[in-house]
Amino acid sequence: MTRTFVVVAPDGPTTPDFSLDDLPGAGRLDVLCRCVSSALLRSHGIRERADIYLVLGGEFLLRFEGRAVRLLHPDERSTGALVRTALEQKAGAVGRMAVETTPGVHLQRGDLATVLDRPEGPVFQLHEAGVPVVDRAVPEDPVFVLADHREFAPGTTATLEDAGADRVSLGPTALHADQAITVAHNWLDTDGFVKY
Amino acid sequence: MTRTFVVVAPDGPTTPDFSLDDLPGAGRLDVLCRCVSSALLRSHGIRERADIYLVLGGEFLLRFEGRAVRLLHPDERSTGALVRTALEQKAGAVGRMAVETTPGVHLQRGDLATVLDRPEGPVFQLHEAGVPVVDRAVPEDPVFVLADHREFAPGTTATLEDAGADRVSLGPTALHADQAITVAHNWLDTDGFVKY
Repeated sequence: MTRTFVVVAPDGPTTPDFSLDDLPGAGRLDVLCRCVSSALLRSHGIRERADIYLVLGGEFLLRFEGRAVRLLHPDERSTGALVRTALEQKAGAVGRMAVETTPGVHLQRGDLATVLDRPEGPVFQLHEAGVPVVDRAVPEDPVFVLADHREFAPGTTATLEDAGADRVSLGPTALHADQAITVAHNWLDTDGFVKY
Repeated sequence: MTRTFVVVAPDGPTTPDFSLDDLPGAGRLDVLCRCVSSALLRSHGIRERADIYLVLGGEFLLRFEGRAVRLLHPDERSTGALVRTALEQKAGAVGRMAVETTPGVHLQRGDLATVLDRPEGPVFQLHEAGVPVVDRAVPEDPVFVLADHREFAPGTTATLEDAGADRVSLGPTALHADQAITVAHNWLDTDGFVKY
């Protein structure tokens, strides 16, 4: 089973001219770095069947591939450096061509619609107002779409509707995007919070 | 209901002479900063009924109090700065006296046994080899004890046994400490993964 996470970050950086000393100031890159860690890292290991896409400014897709990623550490700053290294090579992302900017990290031009064009499996929108996730069967190859630190823009919601996204909630408390990814993994890890 | 988290960090910093540019190099302070965020922050808000203690080097207790904390942001670096500011004032932590180093952040001398001396409620050790948490009733005022990035030392395990800690597992996948805190919150938020 593959687990795909997509974080839509309209304010996310699209150029490498930001400081690693101020990731929040770089379009809340701190949130995005934590999302990458939550999606791909577990204690002393990598989730090899997980991928995460960051949709940066509706312009670039940055994909971290669990089974191939290298140089990924849990702290925000080192992940921020991988993002910066990727954006330094954005001239290589032409048309639909992706450039591998460090091992297992791929940059291409595109937006949420590009990712959801042919999804691996069912698309879920993680949202506090959705249907409780416990009321859903545990899916094969799910694709989870999340907003970064803000609500989805209307255009994003329309794209999700076009993709037939199922809006599910992970609980009564609104979580940060990285926290939601962690809970979604736990839901799948435990086969719907039952199997340990 | 109060939720208390305790992260035991034998390598955690006990002096302020570390760089915010290298939190992993400061005894994996990056892990501890993420734990503070996971314990106290939710989307656009603070979990006012939650507290977290960092047990630094078996020497200092640094307590972040949900209902009083200020200046806490989700990114690691700013939390690292609060830890550094606290340790700059360690001369004020004499005997059992705590010093409030920034609003809602308290530093005192002590170790895990100090925290577990009179716990608010039942003590749980979060550990991948524990009893599945779904087999436990959702507790009142739980105290969750976690290791940072390493296994508990034998002395810590003995302290937990003395406190009657119940060893529970959050799933079959070993998680980072901050991820475990997020899942524990979700377990409580949903009243045992059932109520949304």
